Amino acid sequence: MIIPFELFRELSIKTPSRIVLFVIDGLGGLPHPSTGKTELETARTPNLDALAASSVCGVTDPVRPGITPGSGPAHLSLFGYDPLQYLVGRGALSAVGVGFHLQPGDVAARVNFATVDEQGRVTDRRAGRISTETNRKLVEMLRRIKLPGVETFVETESGHRAVVIFRGPELSDELTDSDPQVVGQPPKPVEALTPAAQRTAQLANEFLAQAAQVLKDQHPANMILMRGFAKPPHLPSMSELYKLTPAAIAVYPMYRGLAKLVGMELLDAGNTLADEIHALRDNFERYDFFFVHVKASDTAGEDGDFDRKVAVMEDIDQHIPALLDLKPDVLVVTGDHRTPSVLRLHSWHPVPFALHAQYAVPDRLSAFSERELARGSLGRFPAMEAMGLIMGYAQKLARYGA
Amino acid sequence: MIIPFELFRELSIKTPSRIVLFVIDGLGGLPHPSTGKTELETARTPNLDALAASSVCGVTDPVRPGITPGSGPAHLSLFGYDPLQYLVGRGALSAVGVGFHLQPGDVAARVNFATVDEQGRVTDRRAGRISTETNRKLVEMLRRIKLPGVETFVETESGHRAVVIFRGPELSDELTDSDPQVVGQPPKPVEALTPAAQRTAQLANEFLAQAAQVLKDQHPANMILMRGFAKPPHLPSMSELYKLTPAAIAVYPMYRGLAKLVGMELLDAGNTLADEIHALRDNFERYDFFFVHVKASDTAGEDGDFDRKVAVMEDIDQHIPALLDLKPDVLVVTGDHRTPSVLRLHSWHPVPFALHAQYAVPDRLSAFSERELARGSLGRFPAMEAMGLIMGYAQKLARYGA
Repeated sequence: MIIPFELFRELSIKTPSRIVLFVIDGLGGLPHPSTGKTELETARTPNLDALAASSVCGVTDPVRPGITPGSGPAHLSLFGYDPLQYLVGRGALSAVGVGFHLQPGDVAARVNFATVDEQGRVTDRRAGRISTETNRKLVEMLRRIKLPGVETFVETESGHRAVVIFRGPELSDELTDSDPQVVGQPPKPVEALTPAAQRTAQLANEFLAQAAQVLKDQHPANMILMRGFAKPPHLPSMSELYKLTPAAIAVYPMYRGLAKLVGMELLDAGNTLADEIHALRDNFERYDFFFVHVKASDTAGEDGDFDRKVAVMEDIDQHIPALLDLKPDVLVVTGDHRTPSVLRLHSWHPVPFALHAQYAVPDRLSAFSERELARGSLGRFPAMEAMGLIMGYAQKLARYGA
Repeated sequence: MIIPFELFRELSIKTPSRIVLFVIDGLGGLPHPSTGKTELETARTPNLDALAASSVCGVTDPVRPGITPGSGPAHLSLFGYDPLQYLVGRGALSAVGVGFHLQPGDVAARVNFATVDEQGRVTDRRAGRISTETNRKLVEMLRRIKLPGVETFVETESGHRAVVIFRGPELSDELTDSDPQVVGQPPKPVEALTPAAQRTAQLANEFLAQAAQVLKDQHPANMILMRGFAKPPHLPSMSELYKLTPAAIAVYPMYRGLAKLVGMELLDAGNTLADEIHALRDNFERYDFFFVHVKASDTAGEDGDFDRKVAVMEDIDQHIPALLDLKPDVLVVTGDHRTPSVLRLHSWHPVPFALHAQYAVPDRLSAFSERELARGSLGRFPAMEAMGLIMGYAQKLARYGA
């Protein structure tokens, strides 16, 4: 039962209470074949266990039951936005992911450096997986391209991947990809899917033609392919919806970019969780909502490194007392999706969720684990419902009706 | 949180994994007044209990919380179709139920044989509950009726019930019933609810007039009443939505008909559960989704025979190992609705649901019963969500978003 935005706009009230949404990326896993225990069941996490005992708990479906989410949809859900309604397209997510601040009306596309033969046919869609260093040099060259009536920006992602952004009046993202997806064929021309997209298609094709010229001697990266043209989604801001003054503490650009899309201020922090909690403490009086993001758990899961994921959880556990010491009115510890080490991928499984607050009557669970939290009083629920619960327990929602 | 069809169409992928959806009709009951135990709690079901221990479990609301479903809506939900959106009207369900293959544009109506007096007033809406044998003879007579511009089909259901199908161009089901619902009044003329239905109303009234002639000497079944005019619903097929190659193993025509409506292939099987499992084994390599339907549990419940329902569950239990021996990637054991013996009716109670799969972390429940499965990690959820979970655990859904 998702709360419509209209209701949040109507009922949310500005109060001094403070919320910390602590997102452990890829939280939760699957049993190790030899022990039958998950990463969380294996890790020694006395502080998280105590948190589970003193919280209301449950598990969330990030997008819909059975659906494995990408990072974009999974985070938007936690912030209260239905990711089926607010899709961050591939190009826009790439732009956001490199820390580029998309403006309304911008159109971004994912770029692959590729190799083409003398007949112009693609022979390698990833240009031999060039280094990020080479990528940066080639991006410098692409930045010299000039198009009539629009600004263009080109940014390195990593390896063979980059992103291009078009900025100007009346651009459209209703365009086909130039990436043919297979080798042995030439890149496709970008085509307009609607009449209104004709001009943007011409601009994209002009960019591709100039790129071919600029890169012609740069074998193996002598061409680019473009895909996933996308405008930034029109997301109402969290301050508009919830009357919050939100801040984000995240190291990785993509999560900082997602936070920016929903109107969070980005706080500077170092690279470690200790740095992040330091930044939280330093800024604690200045905001009333903090999104704190930890990435290492997801990376360990994607690497298939069960033991490292266990170690990451044990490390995170050491920092839980520091979070509680700040006495946030609501502390939520959850994930955006599971990344089980045995799968090496994001998964569709429900994600652990614990909410600690003055009036959250503890479920008295015995451990912070997938199975144990699933027994909590919140049950299994859509991640999109989390903001309703958070706002409620923060006493930031007025009564509905007389 | 139901998955919109668009998302299934976008994300579903063809893979070799196999799914068995084992539907025990009327699964789940209510406590016996003298023992306080339900049928499932009374039955000795070691294999189902072991399944509950090794599955993720929960209970489903077939249509909406508190709503008692008919067989049509309850099955459509399990196949992923919202039965409020895709209603199989009374006439269409009757046609489907006798194994008649409705075509798009057909209009079907439920028929009651009835008794009318000399003034044409209905004296018995069920014609003294004539035998199915008599019904068949009368249906033969009704098949002689000819209408201008349309084909008509008449099929026996059972007892006093039959079904008539009109086939031709531009027919409408926006018609009122001829059944007056009370005795002492003449049958009502069929009336068009929209101008476009005028011609179909005339055809229906012409059919009724001819039926009165044909049957006039067949006391007590000297008239028919028509109700529930309905076209077949436009259901996107399961292969279109889920990229599955689905097959149905069901004995009763209605369930075969429902399976046909969503595009399943109907497999031949004998009349017993052993026959059905034999058919499953024989066809296991040829399809990737199997709907296996068991009827006896529902019949025992509708007969109010608590002990027989217990015995049916114990019999079903014996066949669970054979299902597991096939090593389906996902095995779901559930029901379409409860049919508690003490009610002798379908009920509104949530229905036991267990999902067994490689990456389904067992809830370790102690028994396959209503109370125990309600404690499972899936919680209580709409039956319509089952296909999302099934597709997720079968790893047949691509990741949503980047």
